[in-house]
Amino acid sequence: MQVKLNSDERIDQLYSKNISIIQSSHVFSFSLDAVLLADFVRINGHKTRQVVDLCAGNGAIGLFLSEKTAAHITMIEIQPKLADMATRSIKLNDLGSQISVVNDDLKNATAYLKKDSVDIVACNPPYFVNYETSVKNPNQYVAIARHEIKTNLNEIVKVSADLLKMNAKLFMVYRPDRLTDLMVSLRKNRLEPKKLRFVRPRIGMEANMVLIEAIKDGKPDGLKVLADLITYDGDHYTDEVKKMLYGQDK
Amino acid sequence: MQVKLNSDERIDQLYSKNISIIQSSHVFSFSLDAVLLADFVRINGHKTRQVVDLCAGNGAIGLFLSEKTAAHITMIEIQPKLADMATRSIKLNDLGSQISVVNDDLKNATAYLKKDSVDIVACNPPYFVNYETSVKNPNQYVAIARHEIKTNLNEIVKVSADLLKMNAKLFMVYRPDRLTDLMVSLRKNRLEPKKLRFVRPRIGMEANMVLIEAIKDGKPDGLKVLADLITYDGDHYTDEVKKMLYGQDK
Repeated sequence: MQVKLNSDERIDQLYSKNISIIQSSHVFSFSLDAVLLADFVRINGHKTRQVVDLCAGNGAIGLFLSEKTAAHITMIEIQPKLADMATRSIKLNDLGSQISVVNDDLKNATAYLKKDSVDIVACNPPYFVNYETSVKNPNQYVAIARHEIKTNLNEIVKVSADLLKMNAKLFMVYRPDRLTDLMVSLRKNRLEPKKLRFVRPRIGMEANMVLIEAIKDGKPDGLKVLADLITYDGDHYTDEVKKMLYGQDK
Repeated sequence: MQVKLNSDERIDQLYSKNISIIQSSHVFSFSLDAVLLADFVRINGHKTRQVVDLCAGNGAIGLFLSEKTAAHITMIEIQPKLADMATRSIKLNDLGSQISVVNDDLKNATAYLKKDSVDIVACNPPYFVNYETSVKNPNQYVAIARHEIKTNLNEIVKVSADLLKMNAKLFMVYRPDRLTDLMVSLRKNRLEPKKLRFVRPRIGMEANMVLIEAIKDGKPDGLKVLADLITYDGDHYTDEVKKMLYGQDK
């Protein structure tokens, strides 16, 4: 299907999937975080009916997940320009019957989706607290995607918990430096962390990302800290990351 | 210095240190956890005056730390038999002027030490919640050391926060499956996690221990997830662990 591209936009392909995505260096491009999160999401076969991608950006995660499940996917994105990019990418991939886009503040999510109705929430949220003194990207699209300008961690976690069914799962990618904020917020909102996977640029380095799986009303304790995910081996991606990006070890 | 040994006791040596420890397979022997924790504790040179070892057991951690600092070390241990073993090990090593033992419930710690007076608290606590259904070691000494029979995580963290000066540090070894409990309890008690180091038996395996450093009234965020500590390489300890145990890579 043909879609209109703006002058700053390009179409990128994720080679491990049959997905094309409208990207823009001026507005928004998905990053490795989105690829790692989409890979980390475990979908429980045909029982999964409703998937939500919060802070969807240009829709990368929802688009990637469409290859893992036949469930309906709802992308929620507050920025009209990004929501429009996501909408056109959905058309481009002929996924209009599976994926819909809600261009609204995520705090209004339950106006579009019933409470306690969602099987999986995936979220690649803004990582940085919006301190007055924070150095923010002058590009407002990027600043909103990175800093807690329009939402914040606790609101995202609360909305996720509202949407999810009992025993349903939230998958999130986050920064280790705010892991305490994240775990405290999850516990406070009835989402029990069950799996952590730390991402390190190289073996022996500090983690620079963390993937987390939490279960609504899950029993406390029983958290598993999985094997690390290492992104680089020398100057190249590791085999594990290559496989996510290109579909096989090469 | 000579000390009296009970019939079930032996004297073990940690070869990387000049420390002898009275151990007993019937009552209590320190484990690798204690060695890893003592190694993880960072002592801020001559500024450190007061160190406390909570849940001291037979005193392994306090004894090991005596080689890192000239500060006074107070061991707090509730079980009289274990406190007695620790007291005799202190004599055995001629450390009576540096280390003292308090044989009491840790919740009474501030009867022995002023609030807000301690530079470092180290703790290898009981890891397991004392559910009525929990399978516990029939040996009561071991059961108390492993299960939250006489104390619990939140009490330990609260006592640590009471004892510590502002900006002073708690070091603890714990189990990853209760990491959320730990982080929630630390945050609630004004102890901000600053460093996490996961311990794995082998590369690529789930973590089976976690080392944590928290700062009293530390700024939120800024948590670092350090490089993993791997304990085994094939059937042998890794060089890093060998160095802790034997003083050099061999």
